[in-house]
Amino acid sequence: FDRLRRGRPLFCDMTWHPKGDPSNTEKPTSSTSMASNMLNYAGIETMLHMTCVGLTTEQMKENLYKAKNLGIRSILALRGDLPDGVDEWQKTEGGLDYAVDLVRLIKEEFGDYFVICVAGYPDGHPECKSYWEDIQHLKDKVDAGADLIITQLFFKNETFLKYVSDCRKVGITVPILPGVLPIQGYKSLSNMAKLSKLEVPVEIIEAIQPIKNNDQAIRQYGIFKAVEMCRGLLNSGMVPGIHFYTLNREKAVTQVLKELGLWTEKIQRPLPWKQTANHNRVEEEVRPIFWRCRPNSYVLRTSEWNEFPNGRWGDSRAASFNDLKTYHLFYLKSKSTKDQLLKMWGEELTCEKDVWKVFVNYLTGSANEQGVKVTRVPWDDDEIEPETSLICENLARINEQGVLTINSQPRVNGTPSTDLKVGWGSPGGYIYQKAYLEFFTSKENIVALKEILPRYPQVNYHIINHSGEADYTNCDEYQPIAVTWGVFPGKEIIQPTVVDPEAFKTWKDEAFALWLEAWASIYPKDSESRKVIQTIHDGYYLVNLVDNDFPKESVLWDILDEMLSLRALHEEVQTAERSS
Amino acid sequence: FDRLRRGRPLFCDMTWHPKGDPSNTEKPTSSTSMASNMLNYAGIETMLHMTCVGLTTEQMKENLYKAKNLGIRSILALRGDLPDGVDEWQKTEGGLDYAVDLVRLIKEEFGDYFVICVAGYPDGHPECKSYWEDIQHLKDKVDAGADLIITQLFFKNETFLKYVSDCRKVGITVPILPGVLPIQGYKSLSNMAKLSKLEVPVEIIEAIQPIKNNDQAIRQYGIFKAVEMCRGLLNSGMVPGIHFYTLNREKAVTQVLKELGLWTEKIQRPLPWKQTANHNRVEEEVRPIFWRCRPNSYVLRTSEWNEFPNGRWGDSRAASFNDLKTYHLFYLKSKSTKDQLLKMWGEELTCEKDVWKVFVNYLTGSANEQGVKVTRVPWDDDEIEPETSLICENLARINEQGVLTINSQPRVNGTPSTDLKVGWGSPGGYIYQKAYLEFFTSKENIVALKEILPRYPQVNYHIINHSGEADYTNCDEYQPIAVTWGVFPGKEIIQPTVVDPEAFKTWKDEAFALWLEAWASIYPKDSESRKVIQTIHDGYYLVNLVDNDFPKESVLWDILDEMLSLRALHEEVQTAERSS
Repeated sequence: FDRLRRGRPLFCDMTWHPKGDPSNTEKPTSSTSMASNMLNYAGIETMLHMTCVGLTTEQMKENLYKAKNLGIRSILALRGDLPDGVDEWQKTEGGLDYAVDLVRLIKEEFGDYFVICVAGYPDGHPECKSYWEDIQHLKDKVDAGADLIITQLFFKNETFLKYVSDCRKVGITVPILPGVLPIQGYKSLSNMAKLSKLEVPVEIIEAIQPIKNNDQAIRQYGIFKAVEMCRGLLNSGMVPGIHFYTLNREKAVTQVLKELGLWTEKIQRPLPWKQTANHNRVEEEVRPIFWRCRPNSYVLRTSEWNEFPNGRWGDSRAASFNDLKTYHLFYLKSKSTKDQLLKMWGEELTCEKDVWKVFVNYLTGSANEQGVKVTRVPWDDDEIEPETSLICENLARINEQGVLTINSQPRVNGTPSTDLKVGWGSPGGYIYQKAYLEFFTSKENIVALKEILPRYPQVNYHIINHSGEADYTNCDEYQPIAVTWGVFPGKEIIQPTVVDPEAFKTWKDEAFALWLEAWASIYPKDSESRKVIQTIHDGYYLVNLVDNDFPKESVLWDILDEMLSLRALHEEVQTAERSS
Repeated sequence: FDRLRRGRPLFCDMTWHPKGDPSNTEKPTSSTSMASNMLNYAGIETMLHMTCVGLTTEQMKENLYKAKNLGIRSILALRGDLPDGVDEWQKTEGGLDYAVDLVRLIKEEFGDYFVICVAGYPDGHPECKSYWEDIQHLKDKVDAGADLIITQLFFKNETFLKYVSDCRKVGITVPILPGVLPIQGYKSLSNMAKLSKLEVPVEIIEAIQPIKNNDQAIRQYGIFKAVEMCRGLLNSGMVPGIHFYTLNREKAVTQVLKELGLWTEKIQRPLPWKQTANHNRVEEEVRPIFWRCRPNSYVLRTSEWNEFPNGRWGDSRAASFNDLKTYHLFYLKSKSTKDQLLKMWGEELTCEKDVWKVFVNYLTGSANEQGVKVTRVPWDDDEIEPETSLICENLARINEQGVLTINSQPRVNGTPSTDLKVGWGSPGGYIYQKAYLEFFTSKENIVALKEILPRYPQVNYHIINHSGEADYTNCDEYQPIAVTWGVFPGKEIIQPTVVDPEAFKTWKDEAFALWLEAWASIYPKDSESRKVIQTIHDGYYLVNLVDNDFPKESVLWDILDEMLSLRALHEEVQTAERSS
């Protein structure tokens, strides 16, 4: 999903698998769950397929309500394939007969809430008596309320173009998207042809036969053929877009789009964090910075909000966050296997400094002693942000000394909004950031830090331990601090990230829990490694620092260097006292 | 009120004049109207006196509801003086007997909405049998719900300090504010003494007698005496503040406060515009820039809003402005007489250029041909903003050429919030402004301007004529533009002024109407002067320009210079065409 998203598809489909418990939202691989993940976490506008087969009207309504509650707004309404071993359609008792009935049901029950798509068959529906009767069925579906049409795959552009003309003749005016299949293999092609009851043209068979055991060659051929088809379709002026059959693989489609010049990856981020495609959140414009590296977790934890902050974060007391139930959420699981994690983070940890090294290697992109690159830490959904390179040396230096940073941003003072590292929003604007640093560190460092902070009144701090019993801050309890904002032509000021003391208390539970759930848990119970992590979890503090004086060089590094020196001094004194 | 406000009183009282139709909100000089003006327009927290005399309970409730609707939240509950020629108190049929009953009524009907103040009599209430019985009456009023006590005037600090001790002895714990009268004249002193049934101490009479015909000497004595009393009271540690009897004159009190070191005028503005003291508007943080020089009109026109914009201006379509009914609003009337205005603006106008000169003189603070300084134009409630001096030369240059500016601000790029000219809000912040210019100008200039503007895409413009038939803009219709904002330590971004295309359409009616209502109307009907103003009203356009590129020097002057050159060129061409 994340890779597909980079190409900015208008929408992606999620097929409906009647045999896969498709409406079960508790099951991470169900059609509905995966559609929701694509929409809410990957941020792709999602069209969920729905079929009538085997369902009563009531069940269908229930499934539609589930989709609606998850934020899905587009449905491909289908009758569905005949179940295995069944030759003739039989409607379910209390169910519906045809896709057109499903369209009517959706309209009746949901009005204009859903965008309804229906399927067109350029070669005629396999069960239909005639080509024109089939077009009449399509017309009925559109008259019942369908907003657009996606066609079954076809092998020749003429087939599609004639079909569109014929549809227009009978008064179908909605957009018709051609369905294009980049051939990816001999077997998948014959499966698709069988499923669609389509005959593969002789010239394609003749082209593939000689290379049928060379998958790569077939894929190259498929890409070549698809590019040729798409060029023809686009040049015809009769298609408003193209719908690709990916067969769950994005590579061939990506390649086709690149060759067509339609893959435009380097777009300006609208906001500095990854947005969801959920329509309910369309006005969302402000988030606490804490979840910046874990946007999926943030979306999950706020999924039940009725309103999303726009303009300002507002009164944090009103915000209530969902519990983080990772075990429910397929999409939030670590993208690496336990084995990979052990290689990155160390098969065996003997002391806290082993953990510090993991942080340093992650930040510098270095390999560890086993030669494995650390590309992941529990507090980060994705890769390191490009802007982190601006402060990477400083970060590495303090991490080496046990200041374990999990979030940070450099100060930015009016950089053009098109800047590749810190830019976002429309061109012509100016971007600002207050320097921000969030880290875990030992109690001894905290003692020193608390001595130093009063000398830096321009810095807001919040220091907390895992239980929340220790909680020191100079922030106004209910006053958020804007740490990223942008000034744009013809607009109000946009301030997409804030530091909010109330939300920080919620975040710290998640931040501390990740030590145990995502890191300690990869080691055997009672192992030394697990104890090392547990010790950090129990004894370290989580700290955030905001340098409010953004037009000047950040003082945060000075503060941390002073903290480390003072801690060292404290230790010397203690050693001296002990030995005297 | 405006002068008093500079000294930042905690609150000011407005007395209740039973004979002056005190609850009539249509009458500008009624107690309730004046209290509302003080609160809503002068921005002073206001305590309205209310008495029981001559009113039924229902009438009293009605008066309290009127006060509440106007935003008043503090009431001094009094029984009221006996009517003239009446020697003994008689309650009104269906009315109340004592102040304590009024306190109860307020509590019953309004709960904690009002802060209730009651009067204390350090010398005993004149109608009361004994000093201690009177203190018991005060205790009853506090027990009934009074939040604080203001005392009747007294002449010796011992009297007040003993009274406070005695009040504390019977269990009165609320704050007790001493009432201090700076003596302002022989007659006013004897009137006050008679009204309060107090005896003026011999030493005061002896001090005043020799100077009784020298008002200034008495005032000096009064100030000296009051400073002495206040020092004693403040040093006693028993007073939380001082309540002054001004007798409608602020000078003596101002002088006393200055001598006490309690007059602290130079305070930082919390926001760049004048705030009201109305509690309903306490969260108000954003206003359209158009009314910046007419804040009282803005408060009036938005007085019926239930919510005030905080953080962002929001969707302007939702905003509905009251009509501007100046004839109802004492406080909004011009502060100058018609005669003064004629002297400033010219007894006779012969052409448009006479009007241009008035604008230039106003901006430069120069005297006109009759030697009179122009200190007022219809579009400005108050004096010119200090920041205008930063662009005054440019403004004068373009006004001389018929670009009649009625509002403007220079660009500001991160100036400290404590800056004397453009600063506002708490210290440690940074202030930003987009250059803004609003002016009337002729149709010929507008033709040229419209030719030039496309070359300046960083500028938002809105051009409109009096009828609204001509209406050109490149603004997003419903998207406000922040033109002033501040970044402060530990806070969200504050953006107190915006340019909003919808609100501009409302403002233009007011801006154009002021030509006729406030300027043309000072001349006789059918006079040439009146026609000149009418011609401008009918033919000129109102324009606003925002330069979005605030980090760079503003291009607005370039645009206007180019406009004037191009207009001149157009004229040459026309002249040439005509003569050929």
